[in-house]
Amino acid sequence: MSTQSLENLTARLNRLPGIGIKTAQRLAYHILTMSTEEVEGLASALTAAKRNIKYCPVCGNFTEEDICDICSDKKRDGSLVCVVKEARDVSYMERMREYRGVYHVLGGTLSPMDGVGPEDIRISELIDRVKTGGVKEVILATNPDVEGEATAAYIAKQLKPLGVRTTRIAHGIPIGGNLEYVDEITLFKAIENRREV
Amino acid sequence: MSTQSLENLTARLNRLPGIGIKTAQRLAYHILTMSTEEVEGLASALTAAKRNIKYCPVCGNFTEEDICDICSDKKRDGSLVCVVKEARDVSYMERMREYRGVYHVLGGTLSPMDGVGPEDIRISELIDRVKTGGVKEVILATNPDVEGEATAAYIAKQLKPLGVRTTRIAHGIPIGGNLEYVDEITLFKAIENRREV
Repeated sequence: MSTQSLENLTARLNRLPGIGIKTAQRLAYHILTMSTEEVEGLASALTAAKRNIKYCPVCGNFTEEDICDICSDKKRDGSLVCVVKEARDVSYMERMREYRGVYHVLGGTLSPMDGVGPEDIRISELIDRVKTGGVKEVILATNPDVEGEATAAYIAKQLKPLGVRTTRIAHGIPIGGNLEYVDEITLFKAIENRREV
Repeated sequence: MSTQSLENLTARLNRLPGIGIKTAQRLAYHILTMSTEEVEGLASALTAAKRNIKYCPVCGNFTEEDICDICSDKKRDGSLVCVVKEARDVSYMERMREYRGVYHVLGGTLSPMDGVGPEDIRISELIDRVKTGGVKEVILATNPDVEGEATAAYIAKQLKPLGVRTTRIAHGIPIGGNLEYVDEITLFKAIENRREV
């Protein structure tokens, strides 16, 4: 690396997840060949995204408005709340295009090892939403890993006295999956959650 | 994707080479979690690199000064000129840490298919450098592909009447390479360029 600016750019790109030093160098060299407009466009897209995007005070989703698109959509069913770990999970769920309820983003999962307790994620906000009324069902859609399962179990326990219907997303063999390549825990879940046909 | 700023950032990241849509999304979400200082640091590293880095008028390498580090280094041998395709190739050569000569960046290779002729790359500048005197040897280090070989052959022909020593980097089996996995052309070159032991 021959110049300070190039070294600095490479080092900063290298800090991004999944961008190793070789990729960072290749990107830096590419950026030098881009037009000034393109480079400034990318730079301002970075700062604009960081500056404009905040969290929806109702559900915790990303938003540029006071209330996010989903919460402010009158056509969505506010009585059905899907609980997810992170704001990005909302867009993963939305890819399905079938879900017409709303969301509640926890902003993490319970993890005693990392010192994340119930007060560190948006569980009390969820309880408040349910207590305020109008919520008929809470779907727990945290990931099927240790923390996700523990968080779902903890929330289910908290919601029990409130009398709201609480469900967990199904785990099983993915569509297009193959028994040969599915891990034992997923297989066990698939058998456990079998249904009459 | 829920917001305009996030969509714009993702689209711009997606235009970078090797960054597919999924990677662009993952990077965009990561950028939202970075501190404002980090994001602004990355944005200004982008614009600073583009603004500050220019090409050395002597050799065509990247530089932030009037003349690049290598050309202005008195300890380097200005009589030995290594010809490379692109400015980034200079840093690839420098990784070796053994070469003490200088460089000449062509800024491309001859490619009639793409309409790149001798006047489109810095060949006349190389001829001028040699004519000015003080150059004892020109090492042709363009890539061993069709365009690189054709460019090397063309330059060698132009340099012939000037009486300067002209050499081509060696092609053969890479160190640590295995005959089983080396392509036929490399094998042929390795046999053709065999040396007495």
